[in-house]
Amino acid sequence: MLSFLNSVATGIAMPDLEHPDLSLETGFPDFSALVSHALTLLGRYNDDIRQGSFAPFQPMDAEALQSAAELGLPAGWDDLKLWDLCTQGVNANHPGYMADIPGGGLLLSALGDLLTSGVNRWPGLYPGAPGLLEIEKNLLLWMCSMFGMPEGAGGVFTSGGSLANFSAVHVARVNLLSEQTASRAVIYASDQCHHSVVKAARMAGFYDSHIVSLPTDALGRTDLQALRDQLATDVAADRVPFFMVASAGTTRTGAVDDLPAMRRLAVDYGCWLHVDAAWAGSFVMTERGRSAMAGIGEADSITIDPHKAFWTAWGSGALLVKQPATLKAAFDVDADYLPFADADELMLNPSVISPELSRNARGLQLWLPLKLAGEQAFVNCLNEKLDLAEWAAETLRPVPALSVPDWPLLGICCFALGSEADVAAANHLTQQLIDTVNEDGRVVISGAHLHGRLYARLAPLQFKTHKEHVATALALITQAVEQLTTEVATS
Amino acid sequence: MLSFLNSVATGIAMPDLEHPDLSLETGFPDFSALVSHALTLLGRYNDDIRQGSFAPFQPMDAEALQSAAELGLPAGWDDLKLWDLCTQGVNANHPGYMADIPGGGLLLSALGDLLTSGVNRWPGLYPGAPGLLEIEKNLLLWMCSMFGMPEGAGGVFTSGGSLANFSAVHVARVNLLSEQTASRAVIYASDQCHHSVVKAARMAGFYDSHIVSLPTDALGRTDLQALRDQLATDVAADRVPFFMVASAGTTRTGAVDDLPAMRRLAVDYGCWLHVDAAWAGSFVMTERGRSAMAGIGEADSITIDPHKAFWTAWGSGALLVKQPATLKAAFDVDADYLPFADADELMLNPSVISPELSRNARGLQLWLPLKLAGEQAFVNCLNEKLDLAEWAAETLRPVPALSVPDWPLLGICCFALGSEADVAAANHLTQQLIDTVNEDGRVVISGAHLHGRLYARLAPLQFKTHKEHVATALALITQAVEQLTTEVATS
Repeated sequence: MLSFLNSVATGIAMPDLEHPDLSLETGFPDFSALVSHALTLLGRYNDDIRQGSFAPFQPMDAEALQSAAELGLPAGWDDLKLWDLCTQGVNANHPGYMADIPGGGLLLSALGDLLTSGVNRWPGLYPGAPGLLEIEKNLLLWMCSMFGMPEGAGGVFTSGGSLANFSAVHVARVNLLSEQTASRAVIYASDQCHHSVVKAARMAGFYDSHIVSLPTDALGRTDLQALRDQLATDVAADRVPFFMVASAGTTRTGAVDDLPAMRRLAVDYGCWLHVDAAWAGSFVMTERGRSAMAGIGEADSITIDPHKAFWTAWGSGALLVKQPATLKAAFDVDADYLPFADADELMLNPSVISPELSRNARGLQLWLPLKLAGEQAFVNCLNEKLDLAEWAAETLRPVPALSVPDWPLLGICCFALGSEADVAAANHLTQQLIDTVNEDGRVVISGAHLHGRLYARLAPLQFKTHKEHVATALALITQAVEQLTTEVATS
Repeated sequence: MLSFLNSVATGIAMPDLEHPDLSLETGFPDFSALVSHALTLLGRYNDDIRQGSFAPFQPMDAEALQSAAELGLPAGWDDLKLWDLCTQGVNANHPGYMADIPGGGLLLSALGDLLTSGVNRWPGLYPGAPGLLEIEKNLLLWMCSMFGMPEGAGGVFTSGGSLANFSAVHVARVNLLSEQTASRAVIYASDQCHHSVVKAARMAGFYDSHIVSLPTDALGRTDLQALRDQLATDVAADRVPFFMVASAGTTRTGAVDDLPAMRRLAVDYGCWLHVDAAWAGSFVMTERGRSAMAGIGEADSITIDPHKAFWTAWGSGALLVKQPATLKAAFDVDADYLPFADADELMLNPSVISPELSRNARGLQLWLPLKLAGEQAFVNCLNEKLDLAEWAAETLRPVPALSVPDWPLLGICCFALGSEADVAAANHLTQQLIDTVNEDGRVVISGAHLHGRLYARLAPLQFKTHKEHVATALALITQAVEQLTTEVATS
């Protein structure tokens, strides 16, 4: 009755229905043992992460590469070379990592992923994972409330900010444009916007001819007069102002656009106002953050990444919107093979309001740390990061050779060497400063370009980063400044 | 020096830089204890999953709902109500779940997620997570080779099939259309294509006017003559044939389109050929699957979801492409704050070739089960699923009242009650059959519409599903058929 073509063809004994191959069904005792192995690895990693230094980037170990490539035959745990495969490369989780926007990596997030994937409930529609979706919904409402969005606001988790920004463009297009007006649509984004905004526009079917890159002021904020002029020009030319992106925390310097002014322009021109608060949005939990981002709750949509300054594991972004029905209009497609439990509870049915049908549940990553440590622990930690950036700026400001601009300081302190009179020489010197600091290996800082000038950028945003780590960085910076200025003076 | 506005405003004692609040930094011993709690939960779940029955869908427990909603104050593990929050709802991981496309849920996938999130390396560019990206690359090459794609083929992991299908449309547009031709582009998809294809086209900026829904033959395969006629009509009307979607395993009945014929038409008309093999693609590891999907390796792109018939945890899809450079053309955007280690190794830099910048690494979910159990364990398990579907069909075919169409049987067995002469009555009777079988609670089957007729659909695709589970389903089906036909005869 049953055909066993494979066994004939390959010569390998095939299972029959009475005696199936059960090797994929690891028993629970074995699984516990493997989890113990994994915990040993994570324990060593957790110790190293606080003690280790940043080695220069190394080529992967040959045995680890071989293990990564050989996929055919069963291997034992020790043959997997998991230590090398999991822990090589740049470590953005180290407390001394103050470059770019550091990673998070709360261990409780990893526990959330173990549980989520272990029970493997399908979180596309409510009947598949009601509890995990209630958790996602409540986290989204909590974030909407934090931003001061109006009653009725909602949102959906994505894998990160790029997909949240993309979703925002698509949602705005479906809700504001027709097939006839789309070709004349204009998207406004400053030259300090995250590159994923341009990527998002292209993915949503727009071309670079639809995207206006606006200049920014000395702080890196959208130039409002340029925006006003451009809007007037576009309307006069029969183009359709459609999507305006404000940054609440630019990637380079942490600048926050004038959100109320942009909101007024968006309303005047019938534009969708999207605020990209991917990394800095969580600072709205603090007084200083709320003050910097005043008016953010009036936006049509907001991107925030829990995997940035809520410190969950990678893979957690969110799009918040004033009107969740706009998400349904953009993403819902009928299919007779899908149930849809309760049309009124859009946030409990992510596949109806987002690009994804199948997805991993993303709530436990943030919910477990929030529930177990409490909201105030996050507020305290965020305030500490703001204090650290302010402390760094106030410590560096008296150093004569350094220029420390009075920028927003949402957790980022920028500084530069050299004179504005010779930008090329100044940038070269500042790059040398960055390199000298990073050579030491205990901390890593990065560079940020603004209007052609290179600044060194110290971002003590990792939750594990405390005063001693910033103190190390500041000592290295002042020492490097002394060395470099002496070299310049004597050369 | 430091401002403590928050402490004044809220009356809560704020940390100072000398004494930071460390409550987010759970020590490693505590983490191990929490993992033990989680393992206890998964152990109970793992026992229940094999013993339990399908209860009707219940409203969430009130205490669990409250726990999901209260996010402010720290709670203890037992207060979290994780059992209710994680395990309520439809259980697609149960061995008796033979409805729709069942979930996977290999525990080793969950172990992969624990490790991935625990080390939290950023897998957007090679320097961030070289080992985890080597693993992703090798898995992608392994899948390309499995499908018989040419040398040089590659791909990228996504969170699921919807994003893979979307990426394919965007990649094809960027590589085949100009801003001028895009408005005249035509997308060809059969009425049996997954709904995410329509969603993908809309997200990529196309309108329903660009999408042609092609009829299907008696087996649910794209009607080739209709496709040929449509292509000719479109070219004559100055439209631009652009994107053709073939299904390798339709969602409803597992039909596989005539891939070589569609390939020839795609080449003739300069169309991109995308094959959606999201759930059935992994059967290409078996002789029967290879035979059914002959020619699939010639496609321009293929969607496959490891979280379906490779049984990883949710959140794992992949887009494979003949030419990885087409991905870069579609997704790469320059940004001075991003490094790009090695432009020649596109698969080691997912953010350059996919919609995502930040993302969770997805390789370990599949790599751990594949390495620890070996490739042959997957082949054996897939063959068992094919055998089970064939066995179900051959067992049901002699039942006089049932119509069991001779369909592809890539792991799905369909059958219907009633006469084609009165479709409405037949569909009603078949729905009664499905409901009666599901009432028992030990197994769940679903329904599938094809050309107006409702079929009951038994899909023994879950890796834990063995002969005894299908035997239970078959006994319940034959018993229900007897009961329903007796009722009809005596009514």
